[in-house]
Amino acid sequence: MNPPLPVAFVATLDGAWRIDGIVARGGEPLPPAARLAVVEGPEARDAEGRWVLRGVAGHERYVERGEHEALAARQVPLGRPEARCAALIAVRKSPPWWEMAQDERRGVLEASHHIAIGMEYPAVARRLHHSRDLGEPFDFLTWFEYPPAEEGSFDELLARLRETPEWAYVEHEVDVRVSR
Amino acid sequence: MNPPLPVAFVATLDGAWRIDGIVARGGEPLPPAARLAVVEGPEARDAEGRWVLRGVAGHERYVERGEHEALAARQVPLGRPEARCAALIAVRKSPPWWEMAQDERRGVLEASHHIAIGMEYPAVARRLHHSRDLGEPFDFLTWFEYPPAEEGSFDELLARLRETPEWAYVEHEVDVRVSR
Repeated sequence: MNPPLPVAFVATLDGAWRIDGIVARGGEPLPPAARLAVVEGPEARDAEGRWVLRGVAGHERYVERGEHEALAARQVPLGRPEARCAALIAVRKSPPWWEMAQDERRGVLEASHHIAIGMEYPAVARRLHHSRDLGEPFDFLTWFEYPPAEEGSFDELLARLRETPEWAYVEHEVDVRVSR
Repeated sequence: MNPPLPVAFVATLDGAWRIDGIVARGGEPLPPAARLAVVEGPEARDAEGRWVLRGVAGHERYVERGEHEALAARQVPLGRPEARCAALIAVRKSPPWWEMAQDERRGVLEASHHIAIGMEYPAVARRLHHSRDLGEPFDFLTWFEYPPAEEGSFDELLARLRETPEWAYVEHEVDVRVSR
């Protein structure tokens, strides 16, 4: 694993991704914008744009060793040429989530089959970014990449996650769809 | 629990704490300085000084519910008038620590009796700050406060922690002692 990688999702006219839609669930959406850039590395900390969401891709906080190996064996990488669709799902969880102890949060994730559901969609590449310690408006930013033909599967994946006990702790979610 | 609290430990002439000593273990020390300020809240993100270490006091990453309750019942608060001594222990852990999965890191903490050792020293108040996601030189900053008469106990607490399996993953540690 690499050291923590700062990443910024920047609404900016020269972004590589066209923004196709922004939908909020339980909170304000982000301002409309035309294009999205994904900035990685030290420059992510100072990147500027119409709006910017920042996070850090780092060590895993809940995944156990066996799950890590299973995920690593199935997971496809970001940046596949055929993955011309992507989604940024920005989530803030409620105070009761953060008041739970580690074993309680892990229990909710297990009851939600979060990791198992994710593994059923191997054509969807993803990377989780942590934002809470950065003083950001969201706690987590997950970036997904998939081929256009997999959009229906991706929507199904999201719909299943949103029905889980874990999602009862999501108090603000914004879903940004992009393509290139 | 409060939302994440940004905190900066700032070497600055108007700091409330006098710096009595700075000792490094396995790495460079911090530059000598006369006084230390502890800055809390949004201004911590931009605080400046001869040197600044930043972290975020937020949710617990390893503590389980039963441990949380036991700690809460025993733990004394920061800011007691009689706690005129304090220590800032800044720690960076090695890549093998961060490559472990959550259950493996928790296993090392359990084998180290980290939580149980801490509970044996109820006169020592403490607060853990996470720094890794901020791109800081250390991963963790722990701030301890204790009455002068408890300095020997505090040294014993530190010595015991440094002998644990967990500490084999500490690749850089700086111990800053202050008083007021």
